[in-house]
Amino acid sequence: MPDLITAGHALAAESARYTAMGWMRGTSGNLSVTLGRDPLRLAVTASGLDKGELTAHDVVEIDGTGEALPGQRLRPSAEAGLHARIAAVAGAGAVVHLHMLAPVVAAERWPGGIELRDLEMLKGFGRRAHDDLVTVPVVPNSQDMTVLGDAFEAGFDPATPALVVARHGVYVWGDDLLVARHRAECLEWLLRFTTAIAEG
Amino acid sequence: MPDLITAGHALAAESARYTAMGWMRGTSGNLSVTLGRDPLRLAVTASGLDKGELTAHDVVEIDGTGEALPGQRLRPSAEAGLHARIAAVAGAGAVVHLHMLAPVVAAERWPGGIELRDLEMLKGFGRRAHDDLVTVPVVPNSQDMTVLGDAFEAGFDPATPALVVARHGVYVWGDDLLVARHRAECLEWLLRFTTAIAEG
Amino acid sequence: MPDLITAGHALAAESARYTAMGWMRGTSGNLSVTLGRDPLRLAVTASGLDKGELTAHDVVEIDGTGEALPGQRLRPSAEAGLHARIAAVAGAGAVVHLHMLAPVVAAERWPGGIELRDLEMLKGFGRRAHDDLVTVPVVPNSQDMTVLGDAFEAGFDPATPALVVARHGVYVWGDDLLVARHRAECLEWLLRFTTAIAEG
Amino acid sequence: MPDLITAGHALAAESARYTAMGWMRGTSGNLSVTLGRDPLRLAVTASGLDKGELTAHDVVEIDGTGEALPGQRLRPSAEAGLHARIAAVAGAGAVVHLHMLAPVVAAERWPGGIELRDLEMLKGFGRRAHDDLVTVPVVPNSQDMTVLGDAFEAGFDPATPALVVARHGVYVWGDDLLVARHRAECLEWLLRFTTAIAEG
Repeated sequence: MPDLITAGHALAAESARYTAMGWMRGTSGNLSVTLGRDPLRLAVTASGLDKGELTAHDVVEIDGTGEALPGQRLRPSAEAGLHARIAAVAGAGAVVHLHMLAPVVAAERWPGGIELRDLEMLKGFGRRAHDDLVTVPVVPNSQDMTVLGDAFEAGFDPATPALVVARHGVYVWGDDLLVARHRAECLEWLLRFTTAIAEG
Repeated sequence: MPDLITAGHALAAESARYTAMGWMRGTSGNLSVTLGRDPLRLAVTASGLDKGELTAHDVVEIDGTGEALPGQRLRPSAEAGLHARIAAVAGAGAVVHLHMLAPVVAAERWPGGIELRDLEMLKGFGRRAHDDLVTVPVVPNSQDMTVLGDAFEAGFDPATPALVVARHGVYVWGDDLLVARHRAECLEWLLRFTTAIAEG
Repeated sequence: MPDLITAGHALAAESARYTAMGWMRGTSGNLSVTLGRDPLRLAVTASGLDKGELTAHDVVEIDGTGEALPGQRLRPSAEAGLHARIAAVAGAGAVVHLHMLAPVVAAERWPGGIELRDLEMLKGFGRRAHDDLVTVPVVPNSQDMTVLGDAFEAGFDPATPALVVARHGVYVWGDDLLVARHRAECLEWLLRFTTAIAEG
Repeated sequence: MPDLITAGHALAAESARYTAMGWMRGTSGNLSVTLGRDPLRLAVTASGLDKGELTAHDVVEIDGTGEALPGQRLRPSAEAGLHARIAAVAGAGAVVHLHMLAPVVAAERWPGGIELRDLEMLKGFGRRAHDDLVTVPVVPNSQDMTVLGDAFEAGFDPATPALVVARHGVYVWGDDLLVARHRAECLEWLLRFTTAIAEG
């Protein structure tokens, strides 16, 4: 697993890429990388900064509850607690939280979960292209990371590496930032497709 | 507060960024920065230039009525008077006027004001994510900045840093250009979302 | 008026910009600049080349009928005759023919002409923002430039610097390439708006 | 015909371009170039890599059945067999398989084939602009390249250089990568147009 500065470089580069995609507008969204498992430690992007202009130092090391380790200059994202929960429960090496439009539009149409099946792009999301009903869970929005984390855990399926928070955005995870990004890109495509078909 | 040349550099860079987003097509849109409060002075982008190619010198210093201070080479934007009015009434340090499509489409659907609530992106617009009804005011278009300014002031709510001008575009403001940009980016997302949901 | 090599540099740069906008896909679209009036001479982009990779030498000098002057290596665009006709009839210094989606979608809905009024962006198209009904003419597609040119001339209004060819694309013109581009950008915005409103 | 390293450079450059267009998300899509005809040999992009970051060495040489020639470090794309089949049947010099959204949305509406006619952009797809009914074939998705290849061959029309795989993506081909790209760009435009008109 990477050290904090290595993670910081990768988080800054990925944040700039997502900003250019329009998926981290304003200061929205946050990314994390798991630094250690015992005890759980994550590097998470700092709160309140423009995600297109982060440096490798604009990250905070947090523990398994989402609290910053002592002695750090910056505050972690308010959503750090959910990153830590996903890293713990799903065993993720990287979690990306993005303010994409497509998942939030889809969640409004399917608030009980978004069903996808028989689509080749599901392979890029880590599932099978056929005969495999994928339900992307949707949970109501909350400012309380324990509430969000409990809702995530209640609906957690190890085979489904994403969580949509209604009227908010999406969390996607994987072994590292590249896998998480590939899954996020494919999920966004899938959700635009399924909404387009439902409206067409 | 910045001096004219510092403001000019920032206004040129922001204009190029908005142009690349498609929000300042042709020579449309204009941006301003407050240079002083007593008396009110603003730096505003000059009229009639391609907003993707401004230099730091393509700005004009105006007074609180939108008139250019004497001895300047360029004309201020025709909308300079409304920038000054917003700076005075809202205490804004920066005002951005953009020809985004989403606010104009939304204003056509909700000419009495666009209601947003219970959306996480409202935090990026400077409001709360829950239990906070946000009404983005819509006013009819006019070429008379006094008419527009009076309509703006009549509906002004200090908590709502934006004004949509129907069949025209949007004004967004904040303490500086970065805050105004973050709010503008989040508002555009919110208005695309709310229109998509209404149509879906 | 520019000479051929100066025009060639400008045409290559503009073509690359339009290609990046998605408005000159494949080898589609063509641009011209008027080189002289008596007799009429234009520089027009050559046929069959990728519009994102033109050099200043990938242009052809044509006469008022759209024929290449003798001794040139490349063929002019098949639509050169309509460029010359527009330059003659409208007195244009530059004509851009783009395969934008929005005009072709709008022409399908309004085959008799696309009406626009009371929109601020009309100023960027060279018209007034109020009390000015603008009808963008639509003509049927043809491979015969005389047929297209006659249809253009039959519906020509000196105040309206654009022609939509149904199931094909759009022509926009102005005194120079920059003015033509600004008008084209604003027209595309206007046509996306008016279609969105009609569908909403 | 190019050698493997020349093809590798071209395939990497084209892959990066398509990734930037959003048409090769995650590790999806694959491209090939014909290296020889007797026996049939293709260079195809390797499986499982980010298509935005390929180097000239991230390609695999395959035979006419889609199998890698011995002694190569990387695995070919799982879809290599269909590339080889298209190269053999259509005589293509280059085949691009892209995960564009528009063909998959159109295939959902027209599962028996997508009809296009009387559209200028058909010329960029290699057909006539008038009086020429073009039916882009649609076949059901499968993980078995023989099944897909048989379905392709059953519906093959030498005049139509594309195949849509339902709920999956599109194959487009031509004499070289540039021709294939121009056709793919024009087809995507045509499919967005025809879906927009059907929904409007």
